[in-house]
Amino acid sequence: MTSATQTDTMSIGRHLLGLEDLSAEQIVAILDRAESYRRRMENGGGRLDDLNGVVVANLFFEPSTRTRTSFSLAARRIGADTVDFSAGGSSLSKGETFVDTALTIEAMGVDLVVCRHRTPGAPHLLARHLQAGVLNAGDGTHEHPTQALLDMLTIRQRRDIAGLRVALVGDIRHSRVARSNIHGLKKLGADVVVCGPATLIPRSITQMGVEIAHDLDEILPEVDCVNLLRVQFERQRGAFFPSIEEYAHLFGMTAERVRRARDGLLVLAPGPINRGVELTPEVADGPNSLILSQVTNGLYVRMACLSMLAQQRRQTAARREQPA
Amino acid sequence: MTSATQTDTMSIGRHLLGLEDLSAEQIVAILDRAESYRRRMENGGGRLDDLNGVVVANLFFEPSTRTRTSFSLAARRIGADTVDFSAGGSSLSKGETFVDTALTIEAMGVDLVVCRHRTPGAPHLLARHLQAGVLNAGDGTHEHPTQALLDMLTIRQRRDIAGLRVALVGDIRHSRVARSNIHGLKKLGADVVVCGPATLIPRSITQMGVEIAHDLDEILPEVDCVNLLRVQFERQRGAFFPSIEEYAHLFGMTAERVRRARDGLLVLAPGPINRGVELTPEVADGPNSLILSQVTNGLYVRMACLSMLAQQRRQTAARREQPA
Amino acid sequence: MTSATQTDTMSIGRHLLGLEDLSAEQIVAILDRAESYRRRMENGGGRLDDLNGVVVANLFFEPSTRTRTSFSLAARRIGADTVDFSAGGSSLSKGETFVDTALTIEAMGVDLVVCRHRTPGAPHLLARHLQAGVLNAGDGTHEHPTQALLDMLTIRQRRDIAGLRVALVGDIRHSRVARSNIHGLKKLGADVVVCGPATLIPRSITQMGVEIAHDLDEILPEVDCVNLLRVQFERQRGAFFPSIEEYAHLFGMTAERVRRARDGLLVLAPGPINRGVELTPEVADGPNSLILSQVTNGLYVRMACLSMLAQQRRQTAARREQPA
Repeated sequence: MTSATQTDTMSIGRHLLGLEDLSAEQIVAILDRAESYRRRMENGGGRLDDLNGVVVANLFFEPSTRTRTSFSLAARRIGADTVDFSAGGSSLSKGETFVDTALTIEAMGVDLVVCRHRTPGAPHLLARHLQAGVLNAGDGTHEHPTQALLDMLTIRQRRDIAGLRVALVGDIRHSRVARSNIHGLKKLGADVVVCGPATLIPRSITQMGVEIAHDLDEILPEVDCVNLLRVQFERQRGAFFPSIEEYAHLFGMTAERVRRARDGLLVLAPGPINRGVELTPEVADGPNSLILSQVTNGLYVRMACLSMLAQQRRQTAARREQPA
Repeated sequence: MTSATQTDTMSIGRHLLGLEDLSAEQIVAILDRAESYRRRMENGGGRLDDLNGVVVANLFFEPSTRTRTSFSLAARRIGADTVDFSAGGSSLSKGETFVDTALTIEAMGVDLVVCRHRTPGAPHLLARHLQAGVLNAGDGTHEHPTQALLDMLTIRQRRDIAGLRVALVGDIRHSRVARSNIHGLKKLGADVVVCGPATLIPRSITQMGVEIAHDLDEILPEVDCVNLLRVQFERQRGAFFPSIEEYAHLFGMTAERVRRARDGLLVLAPGPINRGVELTPEVADGPNSLILSQVTNGLYVRMACLSMLAQQRRQTAARREQPA
Repeated sequence: MTSATQTDTMSIGRHLLGLEDLSAEQIVAILDRAESYRRRMENGGGRLDDLNGVVVANLFFEPSTRTRTSFSLAARRIGADTVDFSAGGSSLSKGETFVDTALTIEAMGVDLVVCRHRTPGAPHLLARHLQAGVLNAGDGTHEHPTQALLDMLTIRQRRDIAGLRVALVGDIRHSRVARSNIHGLKKLGADVVVCGPATLIPRSITQMGVEIAHDLDEILPEVDCVNLLRVQFERQRGAFFPSIEEYAHLFGMTAERVRRARDGLLVLAPGPINRGVELTPEVADGPNSLILSQVTNGLYVRMACLSMLAQQRRQTAARREQPA
């Protein structure tokens, strides 16, 4: 485990748009900061006031109770005020309106904007127009950096990431979680194999430095960690695989598969899980499952990201006020 | 009125699921704690910090602005952070999903979960799976303990409950408010009579130690308090009584009925009231009506329940950390 | 600019229902208080605690993310707790129910109620029944005082209002923003001209001391400020003007029109703007546009109004407690 003091002056820039843009050192700095928040909270921290006076806006254009709540709680646990804009009806097709909405929110004194949008690049568009810091909470099939960071924090609490062999299982094609995990894990030195039905893995993914597999049972004996991507039934109208039953049969994590894997296999799954599909209840509630630990780490990772961006913002403001 | 100091070390356990489970002493302890919050608030208390660092989640699977707001305000008035999950679309028929949702919320660092659900026993299911304390904010037709506690606090501020004769009027069959009131009032020594159309009073209710009446005018001269249950029009598709007009004629509280009752008749009604149905506007706004006092006491009762469960949680945590 | 110390003991009464009821001195006092909050916030104020212990309820019977968020943020920035009641389904036709809802909220310990309703006079009805202070956040076509106050603050930061010539452009007939602006601007000594299609300007408006014009190009060389009212497409079913294109052609603010206007023309627009209708993107993002400044000033104006009403409430309470 890295010492927090080594990395606590590291900047991750003004925005957090994706792990593709970060260096290994910046990723480690976020994970270290998250660990430091975990320790403070576990030592009975209560409500901290690191971000006293900071206002965080949640700008969610896709419904998401879990991620939005996690960001809200993270912000308030470190002393920030929060405000929610869950504009279900809005659309990036009215391009300027989306930016106008964000500019209006910013004009209300908002410091950091957490944005989820179904269009890849939506947070990047905001970042070009706002003074506020922008955090990508998921943009279409592109990136979901805080999810990958919490996955990595959960792994790192148990194993060194460098040299670890991690399998991402399921719908790689549509998964921003997969993309962000690949960027992050590769930068920290892990080997990544993506595994799923051929229809759900684009061949071009090999350009990201990962291996492709279609048979979970074949790779299972060689991996240290499986991250079971959620089957998004709402996307499956296009019939990328024959049936849920067949998917569960081929790619679902069962107790029997856990027994055939390496000892201490780490089982991750970004929620909400479909019990009986990506994994059986026995595995979900079993000793290898880190699902609830991921949720808790999500809070710490978001505290870390928010506080690092707020710190950057304060420094930028202070520099502006200094005489030339 | 009992002294608060006598009862302020009393525990009500890890959860508050129903008044059936509490002793008279525990109920008195909650009412005393609520009175003590009333005094602190009336002496210009502002925002207290008794629950600093505690996170309370509202998990409402039935719509309820009033109760949810009351719990939120109560939690924040004593320094807790709150988070709302109003999952209208969810259902206990997906049993594990409901528990998974609650486990996820708990993993975000939630200490207390306030749960409303249309299925009797839903909060008990949560209590079996969560480390967090669970407060029942209404489970189907089963119990609604904080409503009964605020009713009792409102009565106790004016009269001794022991020996008092209280009538619960209306739809006893479907009323969790009635059931919780019966448990609580009987434990504190009141006589309870339930009064309503025969279709809306199950015969088996006498097993709870109450009398049954079908003629309000007959019992009115003998009771000290009437609690006018809300006619839930949404449940009346089954036609349990001929018409709203007839219900109002037979069971509605009018100024004329108040005149024929004992002096100082206490008139309670869990809101939102249907003016002209359970009671006339004249009675609702008259000197016997305690409706708004009930709302205010709801805040104090919920502050009391939340703080007693938080205290229990701290003690349990402290005990765990002590050497064996 | 007036000194804040001159006006900081001025009372605006128990409620803020409309600018029609306020004196010029009271309006100036609000603007001064708002300026003082601006200075405190810009000097790194963070979260102030002027309203510690005060509870502000948002009672919005019309959807409004912007105004509701602005009031919430304003309340919390000065230390108040907030609670939202966005009762979309409610209606003033159930007269007593609306008041009962407000009385219930008040009984939960609410000090100030911010009310938006489609029926003119709805907040006045609340003011007659509540002890809490009532702020009108828009009542039908009647008044929207805080919008006019933020418009005036934005103007006053750049020019003396006395003697200024201001044009209100667009749908005067249905605009509470226009009515509140007329009351406020006239009291502070501005000349006001209303300009729009004949169908959207009632002749009786001249009784408010304003001039009427139907040709924007005719009046443009003589005005110092234009306030471009929002075209409310949802109201235009009645076909008050032939088409959006024609409206934009006749009354839309273009770069060409700005060039033909006085130097330093102040361009205001209560959002959300329809780009290409009331004004072109070039004007909206140009140097004359004060749109985002209006949003920021909205926060300061609402902080000022909330704090003045809370102060009044404290004084009234203190007076009640003094011996006669």
